[in-house]
Amino acid sequence: MKNDERRSFWTWGHVSDEPSEEVRLAAAQAASKRTGIEVLPPPIPSIESISLRAPRLEVPTSLSDFVSVATIDRITHTYGGHSLELLKAIRGQFDEPPDAVAYPESEEQLEQVLEWCIANKTTVIPYGGGTSVVWGLNVPKESERAVSVDLERMNRILEIDEVSRAAHFQAGIYGPDLEAQLKSIGLTLRHYPQSFPWSTVGGWVATRSGGHYATNHTHIDDFVESIKMLSPAGWYESRRLPGSGAGPSPDRMVIGSEGTLGIISSCWLRLQKRPKYRASAGVLFADWYQGTEAVRAIVQSKLYPANLRILDPVEAQLAAGVAGSHALLIIGFESADIPQRLSIEHAVAMARDHGGVIDDQAVIVDDGTGSATGREGSVGAWRNAFIGVNAGAQLGLGLLSDTFETAITWDRWPSFDETIRASVGAVLHETIGKGATLSCRFTHVYPDGPAPYYSFSGPVPIGGEQEIWHLIKTAANDAVVGAGGTVTHHHAVGRMHKEAWERQRPELHGDMLRALKSTLDPSSNLNPGVLINS
Amino acid sequence: MKNDERRSFWTWGHVSDEPSEEVRLAAAQAASKRTGIEVLPPPIPSIESISLRAPRLEVPTSLSDFVSVATIDRITHTYGGHSLELLKAIRGQFDEPPDAVAYPESEEQLEQVLEWCIANKTTVIPYGGGTSVVWGLNVPKESERAVSVDLERMNRILEIDEVSRAAHFQAGIYGPDLEAQLKSIGLTLRHYPQSFPWSTVGGWVATRSGGHYATNHTHIDDFVESIKMLSPAGWYESRRLPGSGAGPSPDRMVIGSEGTLGIISSCWLRLQKRPKYRASAGVLFADWYQGTEAVRAIVQSKLYPANLRILDPVEAQLAAGVAGSHALLIIGFESADIPQRLSIEHAVAMARDHGGVIDDQAVIVDDGTGSATGREGSVGAWRNAFIGVNAGAQLGLGLLSDTFETAITWDRWPSFDETIRASVGAVLHETIGKGATLSCRFTHVYPDGPAPYYSFSGPVPIGGEQEIWHLIKTAANDAVVGAGGTVTHHHAVGRMHKEAWERQRPELHGDMLRALKSTLDPSSNLNPGVLINS
Repeated sequence: MKNDERRSFWTWGHVSDEPSEEVRLAAAQAASKRTGIEVLPPPIPSIESISLRAPRLEVPTSLSDFVSVATIDRITHTYGGHSLELLKAIRGQFDEPPDAVAYPESEEQLEQVLEWCIANKTTVIPYGGGTSVVWGLNVPKESERAVSVDLERMNRILEIDEVSRAAHFQAGIYGPDLEAQLKSIGLTLRHYPQSFPWSTVGGWVATRSGGHYATNHTHIDDFVESIKMLSPAGWYESRRLPGSGAGPSPDRMVIGSEGTLGIISSCWLRLQKRPKYRASAGVLFADWYQGTEAVRAIVQSKLYPANLRILDPVEAQLAAGVAGSHALLIIGFESADIPQRLSIEHAVAMARDHGGVIDDQAVIVDDGTGSATGREGSVGAWRNAFIGVNAGAQLGLGLLSDTFETAITWDRWPSFDETIRASVGAVLHETIGKGATLSCRFTHVYPDGPAPYYSFSGPVPIGGEQEIWHLIKTAANDAVVGAGGTVTHHHAVGRMHKEAWERQRPELHGDMLRALKSTLDPSSNLNPGVLINS
Repeated sequence: MKNDERRSFWTWGHVSDEPSEEVRLAAAQAASKRTGIEVLPPPIPSIESISLRAPRLEVPTSLSDFVSVATIDRITHTYGGHSLELLKAIRGQFDEPPDAVAYPESEEQLEQVLEWCIANKTTVIPYGGGTSVVWGLNVPKESERAVSVDLERMNRILEIDEVSRAAHFQAGIYGPDLEAQLKSIGLTLRHYPQSFPWSTVGGWVATRSGGHYATNHTHIDDFVESIKMLSPAGWYESRRLPGSGAGPSPDRMVIGSEGTLGIISSCWLRLQKRPKYRASAGVLFADWYQGTEAVRAIVQSKLYPANLRILDPVEAQLAAGVAGSHALLIIGFESADIPQRLSIEHAVAMARDHGGVIDDQAVIVDDGTGSATGREGSVGAWRNAFIGVNAGAQLGLGLLSDTFETAITWDRWPSFDETIRASVGAVLHETIGKGATLSCRFTHVYPDGPAPYYSFSGPVPIGGEQEIWHLIKTAANDAVVGAGGTVTHHHAVGRMHKEAWERQRPELHGDMLRALKSTLDPSSNLNPGVLINS
């Protein structure tokens, strides 16, 4: 269990997830080659060398068993997982650490720490796996004192209902731990955000994370059966229901509240039977927009593939080694009960109708008879395909690398893509110039539109990362919101997207959120500055 | 267009929807035969014979073009569609009519009437098709004066986006009118609540209505892309997005608000291509619970049938003429693009695995090559299969007939069903005795549980309907909520379910709703008494 291990203070996950010196050196050599300027990995500061502001509070004896003011706890809870944060961490900059970190083991301890914080005008930062990439976990400068409330000791599966296929998870359980326990009974949650190895159920629900399924049920929202949350106003627990039309949904008011209304302590999530039948295909397109038209045809046919992700030529080359300039569409079906041959054949036929190229023998069908497609190691392969792994390897090497993601209706595509590339590309050209890259893939798709995910990178002067990033991000936010998209499809709002989100949502929605916050958190102890200005 | 015709004041829909004297007479004869007591259809009061309280307001000249104080308008807007309401109507009892009815034709007129009501402390009842069966449209006794705001003149499709498959509907458009317009371009909304012919887009969204699809996307919620609503605090318009993870959803706060936060004026809804391929099967089960186990197997296989509805033996006999004591499971698949033979074969095989009986040749597959399955008239057939049609025929004959519907996780099924039947059955026995019926079908099903729909009926003394109904309904609410269900799956809360809903939802959820209402409707003009006590 990961929960027993110490978290890293400068990369996603735990100490064992930190890239080795060899990996960091190799990354530095690659960076040197890319830019022509020799760089070395920056030294990792020792914990002893990091000086923190003295805690601005005293932990009462009654809480000292599970509330810590130790430096290591405070530095591992100062930042989320955004690269600018990790860059500060690796440079030993911890200007606004929490004054203490609480590790409640029970609902009673959760109540105790919240009561203590409220009584002492202390900011509370609900903390799951710490992988926020939108500055959702930081202590605001304005706070007189702050406690990070880390749920990692509330990490059990409280109950599994195999008949309804649902389980009651404590909020602090990590993805791999939950899957390991479900596997033994043939079930799975199948929710794999990029942060899967290091993020928690509570974090997923609080931030509306996007998961495994590229179509149909894409967000964790769709798997939530009920939520239990502690707010300053008291406990909030919704009823387990497979469906309801009774009033505005109690769950949907909490899903996406990002720790501003309460601390999610547990929730019931819907499960799947483990897939037995699978089918997959990788289809090449000479033209990116022909490929996205194929995606539209397939998603609108409602075949509901588990995977329907297209990479533009830049990403196809980088992530999948596709030669030349081809977009790559990855189609995948899976089922516990139904062979998937016909589904993949339909989808491949549609892709070919739109100019897609794939050999018949490259359409892989596992009819549940063997392990020929090598799916056993899929979770491992999945993990390594994602940027989260070894995220820290490039820190401090003068390489900027980030992503932004959105969703847009099909009628605005591809002009939306052209606008984004033109706007963000212009700023990349101004700020980075040669060596800048901008690429796109679809992480999720809907009958009425795709969720495009953009990545950018390029060499920047060491020390100039933040300033240049800010220029690019501002251009990206302006372009996305200006062209009709959402400022985030599944990364959440946090503090990073708050201002752009205000331009996107109904103005009264902000007033409604403030009204909800006043009701549940009247003294604004919880994650102030996230989502809304209170 | 239905919108041009006058509404009936004593049954669902318009004057042309009223049952004829012949139909009413036949219903009376059937009732006489059932009870052994001869009854005749009650006379329909003439509009002239109905005396109403004088309007407690004066319509300013600036609004007189579209605000009426005519008796016919006021009596057609006094009640929703619940049988006890219609019974009062047919008896000429209109104690709490709205003082005026507004028919705005534009957003400007909508603003004008709302401003007028706010300035004059007037209750506003947003009115769609008037089919509420939960007392969602009544004027509260406490109101000093009230205006029903009927959206039927805002009934256009403002825009159709064929690429994204979505359309922008004004709130007052009726189901058949919108389908007729979409049909010409090969699209369909495919949302058929029981009230489909007489209900409106705005009403569906305001009340979270349940539709055509028995699995996967069951509620209108799943088809909402954006909403435009006028509240006393101003306009609220969400952005068209295929998916988003940005904060608590702006749409989900409005969906299900039942006219308490604002008046929905238009919304973008997702559309479907018209189905070409279809497959259906009716499978018999000697045992009701064996049948429901088959439903669980099929829905958990994620084949996503459009229809997966099981009728218990009582309903199978009444609605489908199934002889003996058999439950009937109706399975249906449809697709615009993909032949459905394999899907129906898989589903039928699962049903047979659970003891279901069907001949091979009774599995009907239309591979898009002809009209052999007679689907052209399906909307008409659908309408007539529902209780809404000729609902008024039995009014005043001493027959009580109503339904209640819920949802429950599978782990509590079938004990949930046993509890409901025992509790409600006992009260039916006490109040009605011989001749009482209680039956169940599933209207919608989810991987984690079904949405059971109960019907009860029986002869009661004429004049005693309300008292007996109240005893039965109280028992039903208590049983449903006590056994873990929701007090409504798609009929909405209104005033009828408010008290029971309070026992079901998190207590703080009520405070949250009141906070939202204070924000958007600070003087509580909008539908006071619905959902929450303000």
